[in-house]
Amino acid sequence: VKPVRAPHGTALSCKGWQQEAALRMLMNNLDPEVAERPEELVVYGGTGKAARDWPSFHAIVRELRSLENDETLLIQSGKPVGVLRTQESAPRVLIANSNLVGKWSNWDCFHDLERKGLIMYGQMTAGSWIYIGSQGIVQGTYETFAEAGRQHFGGNLEGRLIVSAGMGGMGGAQPLAATMTGACFLGIDVDAARIEKRITGGYCDEISRDLPDALARLNAARTNGRALSVGLVGNAADVLPELIERGVVPDLLTDQTSAHDPLNGYVPNRMTLAEAIRLRERDSAEYTRLSMAAMGRHVEALLALQARGAVTFDYGNNLRTQAKLAGVERAFDIPGFVPEYIRPLFCVGRGPFRWVALSGNPQDIYRTDRLVLELFPEDLPLRRWIDLAQRKIHFQGLPARICWLGYGDRAKLGLAINELVRSGEISAPIVIGRDHLDAGSVASPYRETEGMLDGSDAIADWPLLNALANTAAGASWVSIHNGGGVGIGYSQHAGMVVVADGTDQAARRLQRVLTTDPGMGVLRHVDAGYAIAENFAGTAGIHVPMRNRE
Amino acid sequence: VKPVRAPHGTALSCKGWQQEAALRMLMNNLDPEVAERPEELVVYGGTGKAARDWPSFHAIVRELRSLENDETLLIQSGKPVGVLRTQESAPRVLIANSNLVGKWSNWDCFHDLERKGLIMYGQMTAGSWIYIGSQGIVQGTYETFAEAGRQHFGGNLEGRLIVSAGMGGMGGAQPLAATMTGACFLGIDVDAARIEKRITGGYCDEISRDLPDALARLNAARTNGRALSVGLVGNAADVLPELIERGVVPDLLTDQTSAHDPLNGYVPNRMTLAEAIRLRERDSAEYTRLSMAAMGRHVEALLALQARGAVTFDYGNNLRTQAKLAGVERAFDIPGFVPEYIRPLFCVGRGPFRWVALSGNPQDIYRTDRLVLELFPEDLPLRRWIDLAQRKIHFQGLPARICWLGYGDRAKLGLAINELVRSGEISAPIVIGRDHLDAGSVASPYRETEGMLDGSDAIADWPLLNALANTAAGASWVSIHNGGGVGIGYSQHAGMVVVADGTDQAARRLQRVLTTDPGMGVLRHVDAGYAIAENFAGTAGIHVPMRNRE
Ligand SMILES: NC(=O)c1ccc[n+]([C@@H]2O[C@H](COP(=O)([O-])OP(=O)(O)OC[C@H]3O[C@@H](n4cnc5c(N)ncnc54)[C@H](O)[C@@H]3O)[C@@H](O)[C@H]2O)c1
Ligand SMILES: NC(=O)c1ccc[n+]([C@@H]2O[C@H](COP(=O)([O-])OP(=O)(O)OC[C@H]3O[C@@H](n4cnc5c(N)ncnc54)[C@H](O)[C@@H]3O)[C@@H](O)[C@H]2O)c1
Repeated sequence: VKPVRAPHGTALSCKGWQQEAALRMLMNNLDPEVAERPEELVVYGGTGKAARDWPSFHAIVRELRSLENDETLLIQSGKPVGVLRTQESAPRVLIANSNLVGKWSNWDCFHDLERKGLIMYGQMTAGSWIYIGSQGIVQGTYETFAEAGRQHFGGNLEGRLIVSAGMGGMGGAQPLAATMTGACFLGIDVDAARIEKRITGGYCDEISRDLPDALARLNAARTNGRALSVGLVGNAADVLPELIERGVVPDLLTDQTSAHDPLNGYVPNRMTLAEAIRLRERDSAEYTRLSMAAMGRHVEALLALQARGAVTFDYGNNLRTQAKLAGVERAFDIPGFVPEYIRPLFCVGRGPFRWVALSGNPQDIYRTDRLVLELFPEDLPLRRWIDLAQRKIHFQGLPARICWLGYGDRAKLGLAINELVRSGEISAPIVIGRDHLDAGSVASPYRETEGMLDGSDAIADWPLLNALANTAAGASWVSIHNGGGVGIGYSQHAGMVVVADGTDQAARRLQRVLTTDPGMGVLRHVDAGYAIAENFAGTAGIHVPMRNRE
Repeated sequence: VKPVRAPHGTALSCKGWQQEAALRMLMNNLDPEVAERPEELVVYGGTGKAARDWPSFHAIVRELRSLENDETLLIQSGKPVGVLRTQESAPRVLIANSNLVGKWSNWDCFHDLERKGLIMYGQMTAGSWIYIGSQGIVQGTYETFAEAGRQHFGGNLEGRLIVSAGMGGMGGAQPLAATMTGACFLGIDVDAARIEKRITGGYCDEISRDLPDALARLNAARTNGRALSVGLVGNAADVLPELIERGVVPDLLTDQTSAHDPLNGYVPNRMTLAEAIRLRERDSAEYTRLSMAAMGRHVEALLALQARGAVTFDYGNNLRTQAKLAGVERAFDIPGFVPEYIRPLFCVGRGPFRWVALSGNPQDIYRTDRLVLELFPEDLPLRRWIDLAQRKIHFQGLPARICWLGYGDRAKLGLAINELVRSGEISAPIVIGRDHLDAGSVASPYRETEGMLDGSDAIADWPLLNALANTAAGASWVSIHNGGGVGIGYSQHAGMVVVADGTDQAARRLQRVLTTDPGMGVLRHVDAGYAIAENFAGTAGIHVPMRNRE
């Protein structure tokens, strides 16, 4: 297969910029600079794919090229299944990936249907065409580490040691986010190629194949107050117990291996990666058994280090559930990162907002960076982030930027970007979207909705309403997925993307969508009884039909 | 609580007819003539509700009255949770009921959340405000019995005995549908009040409290070639074994008790209804245990009668699953009614289409009846149905009509109705909708998608795409539910309603929505490889991006 790259520049190959944006973003998701395993259509997160198979990919491209401005393309688990006449102000693409009826919503049924070619794993932004490479998670990870620093280390992570595993599409953001906060970072991954990829991309500083060597380098850096990230080739379930033996206790401890998928994600310990891959081919049941056991061992080591004082948290890959299934009763003594560090942001509609320059021209993104500083001059953390991002983030595929923005600010920025496109200061339309991990777009009891105040963790009405509302408001494309970061049956979430092409119609869409979308985040948390959200709704003038427990 | 009745007439109490339609249909769902237990907000199907609680009901009414023509009200499991600015051509209401993240999608989690006041069971048309009383299912039941008659009895059911149980909201349609086909019908229900209600409504002819008496009356009718329906007060799990003992073998045999809900639906045998209700209050675990055991016994009797020659089928209440859980290994030897009798209709987008006169004036419905005959003069079964319906169906609440229509005909009729509203021949707007049990709107492996040709039974992407597409196309309200007729975790489905108010905007909405909606039914069955659907798509000019297994 010849590598896929999104067209750059200002010429349309479709009948409108919304179709063109979907086309370029689909292709960008599969750009070898962006995707983890583009030849298999895998973008990130285990087997998160952009299209079901190559014939489906080509059919989507063909359909987008001929799609009229009042038509809508339907994608069912990465396959184009219909084109319907809707209306000009409606989305151009509607996507549903990996969704299964409740009782069948588990990996066994999923894999069975996947083997039959009937379904695909969409992760979050893979199947909904708004993944932007590791940058997508850098700011989230940076905010998480920084918040942990504020809560536990007086706001200063210099000289501190952060340990994690998994240097894949998402996990690869950790070393950079860590050094951005000033900390030292040890990242364990079984796959040397993944670590090399992070070094090439500027996300990780060094690679090591030997724990004492890695620790020595990190200790030297810590002593000198220098930030350093080292990728260690090894299996987390082997290396963490070794850390304990050596008496090393990290300051912050977490994990981003693909634990959500015990067969095609996590790699069992006590064997080489090559051996593991052969075993997976030969005997998937045995692979899964060993993989689950390794996750048990992995979490036991996390718990032991937590007991020795490491600030330990789960980073949204469902590792705790797998360990619990493997018999580690206390797995959920490790807190999740959302209730610990993220929920207060969700209450005001803040989340991983992002945009991409369809031109392919980095200058367009630098112009939006300046715009952010012009619009929000008083926001110091944002200023610090833009500054760091410009210096440290290498673009992958189409240039992009991520900023955690909240209700109000998103619409403000979106409209201002649209004006810059209109005036020509930005050379081509900008695509604006977000992760599915956002304020009002996900139900996931072991991650985004873990421990909700009213106990509504498992209620999935909210992400479905979010998708319907964004469709009603006229997003350019909208998606509903099952699975995401925690695996089949563990979450329901929705994505949305809207195109700023400098037209009046785009301005209306942006105003509506960038208000309804974070607005639902506020409403969801008001309904659950969060005071921050209630106060914010009051201040922002968001109409709440019934007060909590009216 | 004072009884709820929808306002009649042509005066608006809201800011537009779409809001007014939602208001009247919500109220109509709770009209004592329509709803099974209006004081508890229960419309039909076990605990299928129209609003979560009375404060939510009143808040919905208040919000609909003030809702602007470019706003959208969000309903989360029967509670109004937000009002968003969308666009004029978007839905006025978006609804998500009873949805749970996959792993939590079961009755235990649901009941737990229901006790906390956080969720509500929406059934299909209860929580989506387009239930029209027992008529809603009469034609479907009539078509099912008639199709069974064609397949097994040379097209003539005169002198035949149909036996079923459950005379509730849906099941109450069986006696009337049976006598419409010319057959005799025995309907068992533990609750005499339910049978009385069917008699008052004109759905059932007679009541009996004694099996020999009921059989004697039915035998007399059969001998005279007269159609007769008798409601027998009794428990199906007791009465069916008695039938076997007496050597009576029905010609057609099915069931419509609320088997999907073992706690609040099905009633255990060997006790009176009053005893059962007390037990339910006192010890819900014991109730459930006895209820499951009774369903086992019930299905064993069905299997025994099937072995003796009764044409037996499951009627979509998940009774087989419960019996299987209760240890009846062969429960699924009873076929489901959809693959047997309904799927060929779904392949051409046919399903339970319906409309309601917001005026409250029966003449408006009679005018639409004539319109149907004018538009489809060649369709003899339809003519026969309209004729029978006019003679036999008593309106409940707002006058309504149901007709199984397919792709093409739905849009044609919708537009023609809109013209009659415009011209004043019909006195007020007409609401047009359908059941969630429809061609492209449901995934339900033990009912609507049982035994799909390609094995895609459990894939829930389709109903979600259906809801998104109908939102994009501008339905007046759209809903996504979990549960429905088969219970929590067993189905995912979507509803839509669109208002014909005689305006040009309504004409555009009707044209789009009544095309996209059944169109998805055709596409879903094309994708699964049904030749009828493929041929139909070809003839109707429905664009299919990829041929099956391209
Ligand atoms: N926190 C978040 O916001 C968030 C967001 C999206 C995804 N996730 C989840 O985080 C996890 C990582 O996502 P990703 O995109 O980086 O996945 P990925 O599949 O691209 O990378 C996973 C990495 O883990 C490594 N690995 C697997 N088993 C290992 C083991 N036993 N020891 C050491 N390394 C091992 C693999 O070699 C791979 O490099 C996934 O479970 C994903 O679903 C979290
Ligand atoms: N086939 C379809 O198209 C379809 C559509 C919707 C719903 N359903 C399902 O059909 C079932 C019936 O729906 P409904 O609206 O009539 O429900 P309902 O709750 O209004 O009525 C159920 C009736 O069953 C009776 N019953 C309960 N246990 C009994 C027993 N052991 N013996 C005799 N009678 C008993 C009750 O007294 C009640 O009258 C439900 O499971 C529903 O989910 C099927």
